[in-house]
Amino acid sequence: MPITMYQASIPSFVRMLGNLSAILDKAAAHAEAKKIDPAIFVNARLAPDMYPLSRQIQIATDIVKGCAARLAGIDVPSYADTETTFAELQARIAKTVTFLQSVSAAQIDGSEERKITLKFGSREANFLGQAYLLDFVFPNFHFHLTTTYAILRHNGVEIGKMDYIGS
Amino acid sequence: MPITMYQASIPSFVRMLGNLSAILDKAAAHAEAKKIDPAIFVNARLAPDMYPLSRQIQIATDIVKGCAARLAGIDVPSYADTETTFAELQARIAKTVTFLQSVSAAQIDGSEERKITLKFGSREANFLGQAYLLDFVFPNFHFHLTTTYAILRHNGVEIGKMDYIGS
Repeated sequence: MPITMYQASIPSFVRMLGNLSAILDKAAAHAEAKKIDPAIFVNARLAPDMYPLSRQIQIATDIVKGCAARLAGIDVPSYADTETTFAELQARIAKTVTFLQSVSAAQIDGSEERKITLKFGSREANFLGQAYLLDFVFPNFHFHLTTTYAILRHNGVEIGKMDYIGS
Repeated sequence: MPITMYQASIPSFVRMLGNLSAILDKAAAHAEAKKIDPAIFVNARLAPDMYPLSRQIQIATDIVKGCAARLAGIDVPSYADTETTFAELQARIAKTVTFLQSVSAAQIDGSEERKITLKFGSREANFLGQAYLLDFVFPNFHFHLTTTYAILRHNGVEIGKMDYIGS
């Protein structure tokens, strides 16, 4: 049986957000063990004009809540982007997982040809559901998850690829 | 129509490798413009115990050639992992794309339940085709592509997320 839109999206998003949550737990434990202000990690960047860790996680969660809602044809939940601590970032991840789990396979399946319009300022991007998921959501989501991982790894948190992929 | 195994894999891999190739071109041009030895970028890492850029690209290409071959039930091509320059890395990417394009939809489709065994030293991991693609290959491939991007971005190459995602 070919892959349904639900199978290709929600379970994978939930799994990756679980891995992200475990990585943040390791980062918080590392900060505590080394007596480093956790805010240093939350605000860390890989380059001066790249987003800090907190924003990477806000965007990663935006991408998947937006995807789930758009494929299901329901309103995209709006989150305030005010997280400044590991605990607040964990709460955002948990809230996103709860939302993802509230969307059923019946709502998502069959959305391969659904018209999706994204607005970036004055610019619009138009996709059909399947291309939106494969060509836009997956690369974008992993881009921000891996950047989060890379920021922590670059700053000495002891994590490995298995933390990213999950087991 | 649900997503076929081919649609979810080969075209997306080829597209992302095209984006990677364009990013490496920008990195090579940057090195030349700034009169920086290109080897500095090829050997750059985000942490002392992370792989350098060259190895990130070797692994990223390994993941997708392995995926295409395993899903199709054919031998995985073996590449020597000897690349030390941008030109050699570009050749490896091009060789991988040629291989990916040699595998047809007819060979890949229907591989959702195919048994896939990966060997990591003495350890084995067993998957069915669909879970292998969604849970192992996608996260792994993007992990190494984004890390490549992050290494270059951290080292001052002027690239943005649109270079990663493609347009």
